[in-house]
Amino acid sequence: MTKAIQSSVQVGELATGQALTVPLYSFIGSESSAPSVYIQANVHGAEVQGNAVIYQLMTLLEGYQVLGNITFAPLANPLGINQKSGEFTLGRFDPITGVNWNREYFDHQVDVQAWYREHQHLTDNALFQAYRSMLVEACQKRLAQPFGISTGHRLAVNLQTMAHQADIVLDLHTGPKSCKHLYCPEYDIDAARYFSIPYTLVIPNSFGGAMDEATFCPWWQLTQYAASQGRDFSVPVSAFTLELASQERIDLDDALVDAKGILAYLSYRGVIAENVSPAKMARFACYLRDYKKCHAPKAGLIEYCAVVGEPLAAGQPLVNILRIDLYGTDQAFQAISLPMDCVPILHFASASVHQGTELYKVMTKVFALPSV
Amino acid sequence: MTKAIQSSVQVGELATGQALTVPLYSFIGSESSAPSVYIQANVHGAEVQGNAVIYQLMTLLEGYQVLGNITFAPLANPLGINQKSGEFTLGRFDPITGVNWNREYFDHQVDVQAWYREHQHLTDNALFQAYRSMLVEACQKRLAQPFGISTGHRLAVNLQTMAHQADIVLDLHTGPKSCKHLYCPEYDIDAARYFSIPYTLVIPNSFGGAMDEATFCPWWQLTQYAASQGRDFSVPVSAFTLELASQERIDLDDALVDAKGILAYLSYRGVIAENVSPAKMARFACYLRDYKKCHAPKAGLIEYCAVVGEPLAAGQPLVNILRIDLYGTDQAFQAISLPMDCVPILHFASASVHQGTELYKVMTKVFALPSV
Amino acid sequence: MTKAIQSSVQVGELATGQALTVPLYSFIGSESSAPSVYIQANVHGAEVQGNAVIYQLMTLLEGYQVLGNITFAPLANPLGINQKSGEFTLGRFDPITGVNWNREYFDHQVDVQAWYREHQHLTDNALFQAYRSMLVEACQKRLAQPFGISTGHRLAVNLQTMAHQADIVLDLHTGPKSCKHLYCPEYDIDAARYFSIPYTLVIPNSFGGAMDEATFCPWWQLTQYAASQGRDFSVPVSAFTLELASQERIDLDDALVDAKGILAYLSYRGVIAENVSPAKMARFACYLRDYKKCHAPKAGLIEYCAVVGEPLAAGQPLVNILRIDLYGTDQAFQAISLPMDCVPILHFASASVHQGTELYKVMTKVFALPSV
Amino acid sequence: MTKAIQSSVQVGELATGQALTVPLYSFIGSESSAPSVYIQANVHGAEVQGNAVIYQLMTLLEGYQVLGNITFAPLANPLGINQKSGEFTLGRFDPITGVNWNREYFDHQVDVQAWYREHQHLTDNALFQAYRSMLVEACQKRLAQPFGISTGHRLAVNLQTMAHQADIVLDLHTGPKSCKHLYCPEYDIDAARYFSIPYTLVIPNSFGGAMDEATFCPWWQLTQYAASQGRDFSVPVSAFTLELASQERIDLDDALVDAKGILAYLSYRGVIAENVSPAKMARFACYLRDYKKCHAPKAGLIEYCAVVGEPLAAGQPLVNILRIDLYGTDQAFQAISLPMDCVPILHFASASVHQGTELYKVMTKVFALPSV
Repeated sequence: MTKAIQSSVQVGELATGQALTVPLYSFIGSESSAPSVYIQANVHGAEVQGNAVIYQLMTLLEGYQVLGNITFAPLANPLGINQKSGEFTLGRFDPITGVNWNREYFDHQVDVQAWYREHQHLTDNALFQAYRSMLVEACQKRLAQPFGISTGHRLAVNLQTMAHQADIVLDLHTGPKSCKHLYCPEYDIDAARYFSIPYTLVIPNSFGGAMDEATFCPWWQLTQYAASQGRDFSVPVSAFTLELASQERIDLDDALVDAKGILAYLSYRGVIAENVSPAKMARFACYLRDYKKCHAPKAGLIEYCAVVGEPLAAGQPLVNILRIDLYGTDQAFQAISLPMDCVPILHFASASVHQGTELYKVMTKVFALPSV
Repeated sequence: MTKAIQSSVQVGELATGQALTVPLYSFIGSESSAPSVYIQANVHGAEVQGNAVIYQLMTLLEGYQVLGNITFAPLANPLGINQKSGEFTLGRFDPITGVNWNREYFDHQVDVQAWYREHQHLTDNALFQAYRSMLVEACQKRLAQPFGISTGHRLAVNLQTMAHQADIVLDLHTGPKSCKHLYCPEYDIDAARYFSIPYTLVIPNSFGGAMDEATFCPWWQLTQYAASQGRDFSVPVSAFTLELASQERIDLDDALVDAKGILAYLSYRGVIAENVSPAKMARFACYLRDYKKCHAPKAGLIEYCAVVGEPLAAGQPLVNILRIDLYGTDQAFQAISLPMDCVPILHFASASVHQGTELYKVMTKVFALPSV
Repeated sequence: MTKAIQSSVQVGELATGQALTVPLYSFIGSESSAPSVYIQANVHGAEVQGNAVIYQLMTLLEGYQVLGNITFAPLANPLGINQKSGEFTLGRFDPITGVNWNREYFDHQVDVQAWYREHQHLTDNALFQAYRSMLVEACQKRLAQPFGISTGHRLAVNLQTMAHQADIVLDLHTGPKSCKHLYCPEYDIDAARYFSIPYTLVIPNSFGGAMDEATFCPWWQLTQYAASQGRDFSVPVSAFTLELASQERIDLDDALVDAKGILAYLSYRGVIAENVSPAKMARFACYLRDYKKCHAPKAGLIEYCAVVGEPLAAGQPLVNILRIDLYGTDQAFQAISLPMDCVPILHFASASVHQGTELYKVMTKVFALPSV
Repeated sequence: MTKAIQSSVQVGELATGQALTVPLYSFIGSESSAPSVYIQANVHGAEVQGNAVIYQLMTLLEGYQVLGNITFAPLANPLGINQKSGEFTLGRFDPITGVNWNREYFDHQVDVQAWYREHQHLTDNALFQAYRSMLVEACQKRLAQPFGISTGHRLAVNLQTMAHQADIVLDLHTGPKSCKHLYCPEYDIDAARYFSIPYTLVIPNSFGGAMDEATFCPWWQLTQYAASQGRDFSVPVSAFTLELASQERIDLDDALVDAKGILAYLSYRGVIAENVSPAKMARFACYLRDYKKCHAPKAGLIEYCAVVGEPLAAGQPLVNILRIDLYGTDQAFQAISLPMDCVPILHFASASVHQGTELYKVMTKVFALPSV
């Protein structure tokens, strides 16, 4: 039985001078050829369940033979986690600037053509190693910008520096009131069959600001460009965002379920020696373009009718809107529905909304994923 | 079938010049001798369910014979309701001053002795009418203070002015994550058997800042003083705070349950002509002094184990605290329990807490209330 | 003497059902050929001084002969203005989503080539009229999106709909602690000589999310494309953002200065019949690429040394950082300076900062603008 | 030259597990009979200037002969200081509960009669020592409450424990936009002549929740009771709140002025060997009952006309209220004044206010204090 080794990384500094640090836990793999892994949780302050999953996963791993290096970064955003506002955690964006903590990662915008021309003589492994070094150095240069960088960018690029050193990157999030779902790049869709997650969003292979994209995009671009030059390899790096149900919730039993799902994926990838089968369950997916945000068409008090994770037929009520100020009119109580079948994936956390608040996100044009 | 009559009251003014108004709905009773009623909801911005109860109650009342005047003030704190912070409603206190909206009511501090000496020659009814007028005028005078009054006090005293004109006052709140419970003054404990609420907090007959206390205290003082002078009457005014489960939740079916409970009380008091029986259910109570706040002994991520509304034996876990930064030590995962039996009534809404955050409120020394 | 005509526009709805409305004031011009004007203020909640400028401008205009239609939209963001957090206005971003209110305008992304091909037979005036109609209709279609739009986008597109109907658009903002400065598109740099504003930022002619860009970009694109097809006209629409010193400040005397500056520009453009000369003053500019954000290299308490609007030589202290937790070391009190000459334009509002907080924005490579 | 000795005290723990600590600096006095001193700053997060004063004072003290022990606790409320909301520090109240950080101190409610009966046989010095020990132990017991205590109370009682061990306690605050003023208990009014502070509020000798009151009240009660029993001594402990101009401001030069004022008081009290004269300046005072809060009689945009610290004659404008939504009426721009002479001491920080916002605090019935 091997415990993880603890260290920490400083990601900023508070006004009082206190260092902002993230705890790190590492399992050292026994095979240098096995893929390495980086798993972080809680970049959004209220999305705490990923820490419980890491806790269960570390406890499980103590009993496995670990082949590849695995690094865990729980509580990855101390500023966001500690930022309360009333009885809730206001940890979705920098309270000073409003910028979403999950849109602060560095977009490398590598000139792949030039880089490849210079490095094409290398073997695959040496090529990958050189590319990885270039990405890490670009992050370090970013952290040393002459005019400084923002608080959120500093946090993100510090985390990204660690992620770039791994072959597999998992970013553990949750929705507001949500069922479990996975963000998976289109090129890596087969991976979705290993996690214990029923719904998968298939995302384009391009940068949108999040950790998963920041990690795999440069590699996907390299792979594409090499292919155009007649050299074929699969994308050397995998990165996913796991949305592990609802925010402001710690559930150790459920965390164990997700820890086992992650273990199944790591087993499939050869990170651990043992064989761990994925859970038998139906898995569904939709393309990001078919993932719809439903905004409140009018203000009011909201009764959330649709259950997240359960298919909803066209015309069935998504929400009821109570407008007690309009008592006595037909606007006082009104159901809102969609004209197409969907699966509601998450809904807003508050029961009273302004016009335009995002009430639900729903998958449309959902299709089944094949099992392993 | 009679609909309520709509009007509104202005309770303030926003920086842009917009009036802050509360919608009012009135049923005019057919019997001037029947008690009059004032029911408000949503003084704390996130506590919206009372509006749904009012909606159901108004709809029910359309089919009843209403004897006493009934006034409803839903959405009673427009500033608090509209104040969002992230995905939640930051409506528990004035965002400028921090003062709890429910601690802003006016403490009359009547010189009962002097007032009684001057008015003791009146008949009971005339005495009550004079006392009521004095209370209303004191509120109006308060609103016209030469140096002005605070935003929250203006709201509260406006609401209080309406409450003082009724014989029965119900203030509809919710807890954070909560089971239903009732705040009931000691002298009026019999009333607790009518509402559909399993747990009752028996509160002292003194002022603590809330609407119920602001309403009944001056009357209880008058009754006490008159009794000391050899004149006996029961406290002429009843006031209760109903905590209708959790905040940020609209549930029309459950609202109907509570509307019927209120109707049972109004029936018992003769506000409606029809006989409505209270729900058959076990009801329990504890004294306020036995209602305990459990503060987090240390910081961490919280798994809330105890179910609100269900008795918890001494030594059973209230919460588990996950401290993933202490992984590898016996502090990493720790259960917290109490040394006595209790009934957890409500818990904090967030799953990560600083040291000292109020985790649970629990009733101890709980006793059963007799049925009607 | 003619007063402006008052109306209003609804831009949203609050949770309680209250309409969010913006007051509008219009002067009707006597010459249909004169340019029309749209001026808004206070899209960021704390940036109130523009309202005072509008007040002074409306008062002045009562005494002038108005040729072109002028519409004023003060208090343009009621939700933002009314959102307090402690003693300050938290009006820079949507408190729910964190999105900057000034990055919510609609990017038309007109397919100019296709549109021009279809409309090139029109005379200039008819061409402009058709283009304008297309922009307005695109906004209206946006407001009617099937899945709804966000609160901030609804506000922005409503304002934008009004702006598109004018030839001249002024968006009145302020900085945090700031000297006056103007955002001016490169093609319209001559306009900078009319306002009473010492510093001008010359911005590219492309969309970045703000009102000025949302207004002029489609027109600049049309102009460019027409020129490429051998048809020359100047960009038919002008749009500027005026930063009128510091937020959380109302100063009527200073507002009069800026009202007169705007009047000088309107006079130059023929919106009023009278000749109003611009203030005699030195005016300077720099390109946006030379406008630098200085982030706090470390956390601490900040003494802001550099005076906004006054040139600062290389090596002179921008701020002193007090780190009393490091008393006794050479880190306890430290000056921060830049290696090049600059003009500090604005600084952060708080005197204690986390690492990475934006301390100052400074102009570098400043050049003088010629006078009128 | 002697530097202060650094240590720290833990006052809480953040959700992520980080300790909340306050840095402490101590000068050890050479005379055990000299009074000991405790000085804290920044209990309200935005009120940073006290840290600069402590910095200057520590630097000055390095050159003096220190007779009594002096302990400094700058950055005394790390949670409040680090809590930002937009560009400002939201540090006036606990963001979870709304409770003012400066109203969380422990009210001992000593049963002085019983305590004195038991200890009256002691000499004055032994009596004081026993009383002091009792206060400190009561604080320690408070920190160990079986159901825990709130975050704010934990912070306050930790600070209070240190304060109770000193003879002189200074709590360094600031107003929002404020001139310098001193809170001074009535019994200790002579002390006001030493600080470099022009205005003094003479407060009652009773508990209101703040540090100064928490410190001196038990001692004043003891002194009073002993006097009633025929034993006379002066109140053994002095405690003052210094309001050092405006929040969100660091000014080292001005901090030096206040450091010298404090030094003059410490010199007068024999804490340092050297003689330091108080600044020659006029000093004025008023009783707390004559200190008036002026609330906004209506909402609107505020031009603050009255300069803090400068006398304002009756009828002169305190503020102008701009209501641009009422343009064209006589309500559009309106001056607000008071019917009596006053000295405005501080005003609200934001330029747009809801009805009821506290605009100014003003001293009335101001009288001159004699010089030393």
